[in-house]
Amino acid sequence: MRTQVAIIGAGPSGLLLSQILHNAGIDSVVLERKSLDYVLGRIRAGVLEQGLVDMLDAAGVGERMHGEGFVHDGTELCFDGTRHRIDFKALTGKTVMVYGQTEVTRDLVDARRAADAQLVYEAEGVELHDFDTTKPWVTYRKDGVEHRIDCDFIAGCDGYHGVSRASAPQDSLKTFERVYPFGWLGILSETPPVSDELIYARHERGFALCSMRSAMLSRYYVQVPLDDKVEAWSDARFWDELRRRIDDKAADTIVTGPSIEKTIAPLRSFVAEPMKFGRMFLVGDAAHIVPPTGAKGLNLAASDVHYLSSALIAHYGSGEGELIERYSENALRRIWKAERFSWWMTNLMHTFPEASCFDARMQVAELDYVTSSRAGAAALAENYVGLPY
Amino acid sequence: MRTQVAIIGAGPSGLLLSQILHNAGIDSVVLERKSLDYVLGRIRAGVLEQGLVDMLDAAGVGERMHGEGFVHDGTELCFDGTRHRIDFKALTGKTVMVYGQTEVTRDLVDARRAADAQLVYEAEGVELHDFDTTKPWVTYRKDGVEHRIDCDFIAGCDGYHGVSRASAPQDSLKTFERVYPFGWLGILSETPPVSDELIYARHERGFALCSMRSAMLSRYYVQVPLDDKVEAWSDARFWDELRRRIDDKAADTIVTGPSIEKTIAPLRSFVAEPMKFGRMFLVGDAAHIVPPTGAKGLNLAASDVHYLSSALIAHYGSGEGELIERYSENALRRIWKAERFSWWMTNLMHTFPEASCFDARMQVAELDYVTSSRAGAAALAENYVGLPY
Repeated sequence: MRTQVAIIGAGPSGLLLSQILHNAGIDSVVLERKSLDYVLGRIRAGVLEQGLVDMLDAAGVGERMHGEGFVHDGTELCFDGTRHRIDFKALTGKTVMVYGQTEVTRDLVDARRAADAQLVYEAEGVELHDFDTTKPWVTYRKDGVEHRIDCDFIAGCDGYHGVSRASAPQDSLKTFERVYPFGWLGILSETPPVSDELIYARHERGFALCSMRSAMLSRYYVQVPLDDKVEAWSDARFWDELRRRIDDKAADTIVTGPSIEKTIAPLRSFVAEPMKFGRMFLVGDAAHIVPPTGAKGLNLAASDVHYLSSALIAHYGSGEGELIERYSENALRRIWKAERFSWWMTNLMHTFPEASCFDARMQVAELDYVTSSRAGAAALAENYVGLPY
Repeated sequence: MRTQVAIIGAGPSGLLLSQILHNAGIDSVVLERKSLDYVLGRIRAGVLEQGLVDMLDAAGVGERMHGEGFVHDGTELCFDGTRHRIDFKALTGKTVMVYGQTEVTRDLVDARRAADAQLVYEAEGVELHDFDTTKPWVTYRKDGVEHRIDCDFIAGCDGYHGVSRASAPQDSLKTFERVYPFGWLGILSETPPVSDELIYARHERGFALCSMRSAMLSRYYVQVPLDDKVEAWSDARFWDELRRRIDDKAADTIVTGPSIEKTIAPLRSFVAEPMKFGRMFLVGDAAHIVPPTGAKGLNLAASDVHYLSSALIAHYGSGEGELIERYSENALRRIWKAERFSWWMTNLMHTFPEASCFDARMQVAELDYVTSSRAGAAALAENYVGLPY
């Protein structure tokens, strides 16, 4: 089999890339190790930057999102028992869209299938070959049969644990990492959200976040020690702890109910450089991870898709190779800024085991500054809604 | 002897407070442990916020400053070998004044003396009494003779090592501290400054700062390990190290010469709470220390003088005691924000022994953000020129 771009991974970044390339007349094959059901079962955050919303619209897959998603004009920061609003729209002219990553994936699958795309699920033993030449190729096994795809380029959209980054020459790969000394205990609950907008709370007992999926599906988180077990957290204990960390009004009005999902996730910052190895590109989680504070993960994958699709379209259109050559540099400059924002928000809102009382006051002073200065609030807002591509 | 306000310490904050109170018809005595020559010999930074410039003007001591000082409309941040300008005036409408702290002190001494102020130098064994009552008093020795001053209030403007904070009931005093793992090696040189504005440089070898006192007096700093000795730093070694840390253009054009002063200073953040104990108030370094990055030390002392003089003038004028009661709270809210800014700039620009390569990239990403975003630059600028009182 032959295609122009072999895409490894059928998560939102691989599918979005495939869809954008298709719309530009560029052929691709998407290989996914897991089943479709598995991919659609993964629960992920869903706060979409304006730039991603625009990309989904341009790709023709935004219709359901606009019908079912929620536009958020701002968010609230809670500290010292009081909530302070950051008005994204007034400060930046932009908003964010709350729409689950699973829904984005589903919309993209539907669109790709409607266009008879080549999506190969349960592709086993994927291997990338000769991407340091002009004739890369990919092999995989499906139902016990070996397949080979010859292609011009390979896009590694297969996540942190995928084969793409592992296939890069390890001596030319530099990695940067920060592991945070806590996790997020998150629950899903079929209850109305406590607030129309997200509440990010800094409390001496730890961080808390009030988020939502829909009008009757709430998502709440509390910071917990890394070695805590989910089993130690009954629903009652979770709600009690959450109520302690948010303001009295929110604590008094929050509607609680049984959790329908409960997990503990670690927090990590990770970047691999470069993101281009000959004719193989890393995209999204394959190259970088952010802690969930600030909701940048999916948006960064989309950012990479923006730079890579533009580069490929230029290559196949005018034959201009400059954007291909600069993909890594261009993508990384924006990635590092978003890594900084996620790291900053994480440092700002969480309690750290090694923190002194001076460090704790620095958090409160910074929150006081950010919520009392237009420039401070604008800096947070423009990062939250997404810096320009 | 009797006065309305006994002021401990004849540095710029004690003198400025005395001058402002005098202009409002309020009597004070200033006690200073050291000699006038000693006080005027202390070399300190001299970047004055607009608010301090306005206070000196309002106090009638701004004339020489406007003649001899330099108005700076911006500053430059240097990283990855390139300088980026932060335009204070365009971003905030405000500027800063470069004018040595020693000169401010001299102008205030001249003004106080012209008004026959009671300035007592070489006052030994100062003790503060009964400031938890409405009749505080102060004792000291001068030329072997014991003196007593009865007063309404005591203002402790006597610095970190002074008697005022030490006299506060220690069980009601809470302190916050961060000691940084490096020092600043600074030199004075009778050479023209390399640039019209200050250059703050972040380099993998460490921080550097190009500053000045006048058109023929430059002040340069490089970050050094805490245990470095001045003797290990010849002038030649200093200039070589400075040139390595700044951009090529600055390195190529800098005029070097023999140092006329060379010292290593540690960096520290410190805050004591509260700043009011009955009728005794802490002002400036007596209550808080900032690292020199961002030049906030003198400006914070002035900030306290603003809040305290306003409170005393209200008390003696309308009899309103609200501002007196809220002095600590009002002063500290601004202090904490400036502590945050100084801590942030210090973290942003210096190399830390324990820093990972991820941490180093966070510094560069933050500098890239601050110098490429108007909101990011405005946040830096508004803190640098001074947040509103």
